[in-house]
Amino acid sequence: MRLATIRNETPDGALAVVSSDGRRCLSAVTVAPTLQAALDDWKGAEDRLRRLSVAVESGEGAPLDAAALAAPLPRAWQWLDGSAFDAHGRLMARLFGLQAKPGPRPLMYQGMSHQFLGPYDDVPLPRESDDIDFEGEFGVVTDAVPMGVSPSQAAAHIALVVIVNDWSLRAFAREEMQTGFGWIHAKPACSLGPYAITPDALGAGWDRSRVQLRLRVEVNGARFGEPQGGEMSVGFDELIAHAAATRALCAGTVVGSGTVSNDDYLASGSACIAERRAIELLDHGAATTPFLRFGDRVRMNAIDRTGRSPLGAIDQRVVSSRAADVGSAEGAV
Amino acid sequence: MRLATIRNETPDGALAVVSSDGRRCLSAVTVAPTLQAALDDWKGAEDRLRRLSVAVESGEGAPLDAAALAAPLPRAWQWLDGSAFDAHGRLMARLFGLQAKPGPRPLMYQGMSHQFLGPYDDVPLPRESDDIDFEGEFGVVTDAVPMGVSPSQAAAHIALVVIVNDWSLRAFAREEMQTGFGWIHAKPACSLGPYAITPDALGAGWDRSRVQLRLRVEVNGARFGEPQGGEMSVGFDELIAHAAATRALCAGTVVGSGTVSNDDYLASGSACIAERRAIELLDHGAATTPFLRFGDRVRMNAIDRTGRSPLGAIDQRVVSSRAADVGSAEGAV
Repeated sequence: MRLATIRNETPDGALAVVSSDGRRCLSAVTVAPTLQAALDDWKGAEDRLRRLSVAVESGEGAPLDAAALAAPLPRAWQWLDGSAFDAHGRLMARLFGLQAKPGPRPLMYQGMSHQFLGPYDDVPLPRESDDIDFEGEFGVVTDAVPMGVSPSQAAAHIALVVIVNDWSLRAFAREEMQTGFGWIHAKPACSLGPYAITPDALGAGWDRSRVQLRLRVEVNGARFGEPQGGEMSVGFDELIAHAAATRALCAGTVVGSGTVSNDDYLASGSACIAERRAIELLDHGAATTPFLRFGDRVRMNAIDRTGRSPLGAIDQRVVSSRAADVGSAEGAV
Repeated sequence: MRLATIRNETPDGALAVVSSDGRRCLSAVTVAPTLQAALDDWKGAEDRLRRLSVAVESGEGAPLDAAALAAPLPRAWQWLDGSAFDAHGRLMARLFGLQAKPGPRPLMYQGMSHQFLGPYDDVPLPRESDDIDFEGEFGVVTDAVPMGVSPSQAAAHIALVVIVNDWSLRAFAREEMQTGFGWIHAKPACSLGPYAITPDALGAGWDRSRVQLRLRVEVNGARFGEPQGGEMSVGFDELIAHAAATRALCAGTVVGSGTVSNDDYLASGSACIAERRAIELLDHGAATTPFLRFGDRVRMNAIDRTGRSPLGAIDQRVVSSRAADVGSAEGAV
């Protein structure tokens, strides 16, 4: 089952089901007005949404207008981003001169969640000199998770899967890490892919609480990397259990994998610029790949073995938040 | 003007205005159903709420049932906690063996915001061995703040003032700081005081975007500390501008001061156990004040020069989240 959010006059948009070929969509507001509302009562809503999904597959609904798609959750009560690809963690730690992973627990930070940009929205940022970067990730959306769940219990709370671009401003990253307090300036709003899908809709692309697909990242149309999501050192089940150790998680919590990254990074490429620059610096003594400029486009897409894109693509342009034609405070309304 | 949230069957409760003597309250749902809704349209709502405030001061409304009070925002889209008392920062950095403040910018982390405990709610936590601690703080609630505001522009976005208990599990604090990712396990849900008040209602207790009141903290009825809020090294205006450097802030963003702490800490006492333990360790070679046990009560209150408590008191008991009679997953619903 594939869910999406259609923009309307409300901050959370309107819930819809989308056909697996991405061509048709059917309003789901008879089940729940928004995806958040559906997640708030996921046990009650899921079956009813699946019936609408059958209907849209059989030709009901209307042609999908991709331009009307917001992020599946245009805002969420909680965004917890892991760093579950050890290959990425090792490279970044070497770059920052930090320990790769000081403790036995998964790495995770709490990020801003009051705004997720839609898959084709412009990305307003204040300055190119902040070293604008992307991070290609997979993510899951949970229903309500009690405090203290085990990883196997946590797996049952994975309602939906998404792709995420965790936009990052690298100029602030090291200093904010050194405070120990995590990131504020370095982590503006993330973007979500257009579709939030149930794990079963991934077929063989979902196993051991990991997305077993490559995330293809392109910058201005050129392949940047295509790392495999299955190489997470801990699965989303373990990330959720980690997050819920001392707190209950609200329905609609989004949990990210961290930058997808593989041990064979020279072949797979990278899903963020900082990692490629770390490789360049460590292997060749100098980082040569530039960070993004205003006007650059970043596309992320995960293609399955049948050639389809079950999670849809993110395709965005970075723009100046200071330009008069950009609604930079849009997310604050 | 003093606002509060009355529990009802919805997650966000019902907005009310409360008289300055704390005895009467008047529903404000004719203006906005919830405090979040009022903040979403603060320019439109504030005057109308002030008219209700005049009415409740003149005897309208009903006797206030303190037990019905939830946190003014039972959940928020964003909680950003600063560390704006340098006295606290220096002590904690010495304890953790870290630099006091590695960069020129204010310290701030993003914390969980999908649940704020009410002022008299039990505080369910999993284990005493996690080193349960409190942090007494002042906080402000903003309306919508555009990206890139200056401190003086930010000051105009301070809608309301609250007190905060930033519950902390110290056993995880150092390891999570060392990751550079900030805190997940160490920072479960915070509590808010019962009243969110406009800065003008503090009179002389609000100056230079700081609360000029002492925050009295008691543990099991005994004075623990009474530090002065006016000693913030940066004001809330600067904290908000810092937070908004690379993101717009949504209406209803809660910004915390960090643990209130003064240079004369031996006289003023501390607003968290960890700071007192740091003082003991640094001054006497051994930390002797224990962390909290289940059943311990923590009270926080800020009294003004007329003997009144404009922000109301937080008075809570720490309990086991594993006890059968505790709704530990309540915040996850």
